Amino acid sequence: MIRNTQTIRVFAPATVANVSCGFDVFGFAVHEPGDEVFLTLRNTPRVKILSIHGDKGLLSVDPEKNTAGVAAQAFLNAYAPDAGVDIELFKGLPIGSGLGSSAASAAAVLFGLNRLLGHPADGKALLEFGLQSEKSACGSAHGDNVIPSLLGGFILIRSYHPLDIRHLPIPEDLYCTLVFPQVEIETRKARELIPKSIPLETAVRQWGNTAGLAAGFCLSDYDLIARSMEDLIAEPVRATLIPQYHLVTKSAQDAGALGCGISGSGPTVFALSKGKETAQKVREAMRSVYEKSHVSYQTWVSPLNPEGPRIV
Amino acid sequence: MIRNTQTIRVFAPATVANVSCGFDVFGFAVHEPGDEVFLTLRNTPRVKILSIHGDKGLLSVDPEKNTAGVAAQAFLNAYAPDAGVDIELFKGLPIGSGLGSSAASAAAVLFGLNRLLGHPADGKALLEFGLQSEKSACGSAHGDNVIPSLLGGFILIRSYHPLDIRHLPIPEDLYCTLVFPQVEIETRKARELIPKSIPLETAVRQWGNTAGLAAGFCLSDYDLIARSMEDLIAEPVRATLIPQYHLVTKSAQDAGALGCGISGSGPTVFALSKGKETAQKVREAMRSVYEKSHVSYQTWVSPLNPEGPRIV
Repeated sequence: MIRNTQTIRVFAPATVANVSCGFDVFGFAVHEPGDEVFLTLRNTPRVKILSIHGDKGLLSVDPEKNTAGVAAQAFLNAYAPDAGVDIELFKGLPIGSGLGSSAASAAAVLFGLNRLLGHPADGKALLEFGLQSEKSACGSAHGDNVIPSLLGGFILIRSYHPLDIRHLPIPEDLYCTLVFPQVEIETRKARELIPKSIPLETAVRQWGNTAGLAAGFCLSDYDLIARSMEDLIAEPVRATLIPQYHLVTKSAQDAGALGCGISGSGPTVFALSKGKETAQKVREAMRSVYEKSHVSYQTWVSPLNPEGPRIV
Repeated sequence: MIRNTQTIRVFAPATVANVSCGFDVFGFAVHEPGDEVFLTLRNTPRVKILSIHGDKGLLSVDPEKNTAGVAAQAFLNAYAPDAGVDIELFKGLPIGSGLGSSAASAAAVLFGLNRLLGHPADGKALLEFGLQSEKSACGSAHGDNVIPSLLGGFILIRSYHPLDIRHLPIPEDLYCTLVFPQVEIETRKARELIPKSIPLETAVRQWGNTAGLAAGFCLSDYDLIARSMEDLIAEPVRATLIPQYHLVTKSAQDAGALGCGISGSGPTVFALSKGKETAQKVREAMRSVYEKSHVSYQTWVSPLNPEGPRIV
């Protein structure tokens, strides 16, 4: 029997998927932006989304059409089929930004419900619910947003079948700059741009880079990270969807960024830098490009986020 | 003026290129087998191969048709055009084994000449000579044998153009078992089997594995190393060239190996194990397969070799 006073407020972070060369295999969490959910357990079996704030009216409060609701329903079906939950959703994460907006909402709900119900799900089960909710949102169960949002840190997804993930160490002084130019990119369309097959030579260069980026993180080798941030698969075709992409990334690198890339399927551009000061300079450099071109944008600077969701 | 008493004897190690998932990007050196060269500097501009031992008469003493000679000539042209060298070559490394036989001979000569002439070449220049000599031997400048033979250790070749390499840490208790079944495989033909283009999904799995193997070495995560030793590119097509390949690798894994693969283009099969005892059990298991099938073979067990060439 659930007392209907059981409530929790949870923050889950935005995530950068792919991380340049690591198409579908790397993702990391940041400290901001992120989504918050306010959950109230009920003793009637019903998931209800009471309100959504900060979504500009874009999201549905129908729980079957919202990843927060889908994740909640799947979790309750598994562990508390007689219970329900009221959800208030506070979107700090812009929708359609390539920062894992739907993943963060789902991660916050899953983390919160698991806490409210006394941790019935282990880490692996939580990830499976996260992947399911991503499938409902994006049509494919790519976990490079929801997994780092749920677990925090920098994640290597070595394999999806079976799921095999590994936290990589995060170099101490690494910062992420995010710039979200407000244009619309559909994840499905951005995915369709990716070639279905790639020349061997290109693939070899790409896996040299993914190995390099992984080693760079493990060894805190900033130069190796910088040299490995080269994407021959997604960036060449997706850059065309992002206003001023090459100018923005060049300005970031001129300002000292280790490297840049497209966050997930975009349009957010991310840069990694050594040190907060550099990351802030990089933000100014990227910002100035969009100021001149009159594109609306948002920016954030934060260290990588090792913890994932947290109670607010 | 070179006194004609300047001599040196150098050992350079065998190497395992590709290392399962890391086609063209990973390679490591072992302690045995290897090649030795005995070099005598002369003050007449002529490279002479006095004798070759252990090659069963397969190699040419014409210095233009032997990587040891080609490497020596290129090195002398650059740094001591008035000097010459007499070479005696002791092949401890079987030819056509996939263990970098030509690379080890070249590495030994380059290391030895550089020492005899007072280190005129820095590391980068030595690697360039090594790559050139491989090009003359194999038709392509793939450095995943000659680079680890020259430098020792476990090497990531992140990029060939420009050349960008990184030593990865070697887990302390890691051993390599090698089994060379004596069948002939031509490197060029083995290379032609590799598909020229790869489905995206396969490539993603491969770069998840290369990132995993790199991280596994950096973090001494033996389980991650084991899970990442999966090759979807070369092994499926090249395994057909190697007698009993699937039986040998299965027997190795049943005996406790972390994983197996084809050394370079084969036919040598390598296995990595945690601990010497396991590596020796793995050797027995692999050996027993070839004993039963009456294939001639040679085997070696050694830790990975962090130093590369050494003076004998």
